[in-house]
Amino acid sequence: MTAYTAVVTVRLKRGVLDPEAETTARALERLGFELEELRAADRFEVDLDAASEDAAAERADAMAERLLANPTIHDYTVEVESR
Amino acid sequence: MTAYTAVVTVRLKRGVLDPEAETTARALERLGFELEELRAADRFEVDLDAASEDAAAERADAMAERLLANPTIHDYTVEVESR
Repeated sequence: MTAYTAVVTVRLKRGVLDPEAETTARALERLGFELEELRAADRFEVDLDAASEDAAAERADAMAERLLANPTIHDYTVEVESR
Repeated sequence: MTAYTAVVTVRLKRGVLDPEAETTARALERLGFELEELRAADRFEVDLDAASEDAAAERADAMAERLLANPTIHDYTVEVESR
């Protein structure tokens, strides 16, 4: 077994409104910052032991499907690195 | 001016309790997943126009200092890519 860290990034699907990100962008503008757009995402770093990088990615993918992301409104990506 | 995307990742400092991440980890375990640890972070993707990559990184850093991160409890990293 090797020690891996799987990074699961969960984003709202394109077209799903994100009032919190919108509020953050407006607040930055009120502070004088210039920006075009701001998107917010959740990042989960999962330390796990697995037989291979593929096995680690598969497990992290299943975690996203079952709990970390809501398939109705979220897209997600999984990246695995050994630690 | 060039179009950049600055990715600001905001993490709790080591030692700061994160009950939400703890709850997520326990919920994954209850679903039958094996994992060692789970950390949660906020990821902000900021689209902005700047004269250089350094200028874009500097502005994103200032955004983190002023609004996106709370220096008492958070660490943050900034990565810039052209888009």
